[in-house]
Amino acid sequence: MLRAVKRIRVEWSHCDPARIIYNPNYYIWMDQGTHGLLDAAGFPYAEEVGKNGFRGCPLVASGADFMRPLQFNDIVVLTSSVASFGRTSFRVEHLFAIGDTTYAKGFEVRVWARDTDDGSGGLVAVPVPEYIREKLSRDVVVDTTLK
Amino acid sequence: MLRAVKRIRVEWSHCDPARIIYNPNYYIWMDQGTHGLLDAAGFPYAEEVGKNGFRGCPLVASGADFMRPLQFNDIVVLTSSVASFGRTSFRVEHLFAIGDTTYAKGFEVRVWARDTDDGSGGLVAVPVPEYIREKLSRDVVVDTTLK
Amino acid sequence: MLRAVKRIRVEWSHCDPARIIYNPNYYIWMDQGTHGLLDAAGFPYAEEVGKNGFRGCPLVASGADFMRPLQFNDIVVLTSSVASFGRTSFRVEHLFAIGDTTYAKGFEVRVWARDTDDGSGGLVAVPVPEYIREKLSRDVVVDTTLK
Amino acid sequence: MLRAVKRIRVEWSHCDPARIIYNPNYYIWMDQGTHGLLDAAGFPYAEEVGKNGFRGCPLVASGADFMRPLQFNDIVVLTSSVASFGRTSFRVEHLFAIGDTTYAKGFEVRVWARDTDDGSGGLVAVPVPEYIREKLSRDVVVDTTLK
Repeated sequence: MLRAVKRIRVEWSHCDPARIIYNPNYYIWMDQGTHGLLDAAGFPYAEEVGKNGFRGCPLVASGADFMRPLQFNDIVVLTSSVASFGRTSFRVEHLFAIGDTTYAKGFEVRVWARDTDDGSGGLVAVPVPEYIREKLSRDVVVDTTLK
Repeated sequence: MLRAVKRIRVEWSHCDPARIIYNPNYYIWMDQGTHGLLDAAGFPYAEEVGKNGFRGCPLVASGADFMRPLQFNDIVVLTSSVASFGRTSFRVEHLFAIGDTTYAKGFEVRVWARDTDDGSGGLVAVPVPEYIREKLSRDVVVDTTLK
Repeated sequence: MLRAVKRIRVEWSHCDPARIIYNPNYYIWMDQGTHGLLDAAGFPYAEEVGKNGFRGCPLVASGADFMRPLQFNDIVVLTSSVASFGRTSFRVEHLFAIGDTTYAKGFEVRVWARDTDDGSGGLVAVPVPEYIREKLSRDVVVDTTLK
Repeated sequence: MLRAVKRIRVEWSHCDPARIIYNPNYYIWMDQGTHGLLDAAGFPYAEEVGKNGFRGCPLVASGADFMRPLQFNDIVVLTSSVASFGRTSFRVEHLFAIGDTTYAKGFEVRVWARDTDDGSGGLVAVPVPEYIREKLSRDVVVDTTLK
């Protein structure tokens, strides 16, 4: 599967009074990881959302296991890839590691959402377009870190 | 089980460009829900943390299902209660509802952490103290909304 | 002037590794304070934004002085009121206090924004509507704390 | 003066229902900018804080002017440098620009804080150490973007 890799510095703003990462930040980073993954698949999320009826990829479930705490100034590598496709949903798995050491593992289940056809402004979940699915399935690693 | 209830207003700051709740906020609110639950159990978390060797309740796992999106200015009721106790861990379940409609359901698995005895500054997971466990197990509802 | 008052509990999520409030939270609370002030003036911001051409009140400047640090579990009272009206802008002042002790003082300068008339999707700053200005100028205190 | 430069991608998580940057994020980025500036001056903030009596650089005031809104996926360059030194305080100025276009300008006033000598756990503001002041005053540009 296509893997999007991103290096993240743990900032003071990400840490809590226990002097470690405040865990909801992992969920923000997973969201960014999925956007980076779609970008890497040739689907520039920021440009596409709101265009041609595409409404985005709403989250229907997420979760994570926290193995050890990140600390201020750690540089962690986030690797995001699709683990499976459902009918209209897809599951993205996210790994947070420093070197060979895993700090956290998480997942998101999202759907592919489009405008309904009736012009009501509603949205409907549809299958992930085949050409994107195909690109997400290639065995490639893309570094999405902003340089 | 003891249930801590808290009313939360969805603010502009909690919403994203899709004009609905940005989901990581649910995880922040679950964290607040657990603190409120421990307060309601007669264990004022903010006072106790760092005292008598108590180091807090680090998160080892969390997750949520998102049924429908909250919107700006919605007032949602968060209900938090312990679902089960492990040897040193406990599982808190969190329900987000408006009236009878569930918007999201989540959980946290946390451990009860104390200083190690060797003065190294390390921490160790220990069983939840019996008197707190007993209070968390009473069938009472406490409203923790700041008034 | 109309003063909107709101009680805020400082949560774990608001604090940083120095074990005090992380200051950008003050700016989030000022934003909430202004929304509460407009609500208190009989202009329910969440309902009005996007309706009848009203686009919101974009921020053009903000600032704050921090006198002493808030700590986890402090309950601080935010008082927000308009200090002056410009042609299309208005200045909201925000006071954070516990009892008689001021913790921080801040301000926001915002404009009243509407759709341009040309249907281009652009926005234009216009004077604050007279009936809202009148209500914001009454010498009343409204408690906007969610109960 | 030493200028620390950092490239930042505006993520979905930074944007609000108006589909532009949520302004408190500027204050978070200014905080990160100051940490990067001290790192660039050869004073690795994350390692130094809590060591040899150094307690950090508490914020006493901040502010910003917002010229035009950043949008999702914009890549903005933050340039941070000290504008002036007071007795125990220093003023950092922050510029947010894309190419030659300024999006926002802000400042922070901070003090250099150390443990008091009496072992009480209190803190006291002291002059910025001369060797750091000297480095912050050199006319150099350092790119602190994580690569």
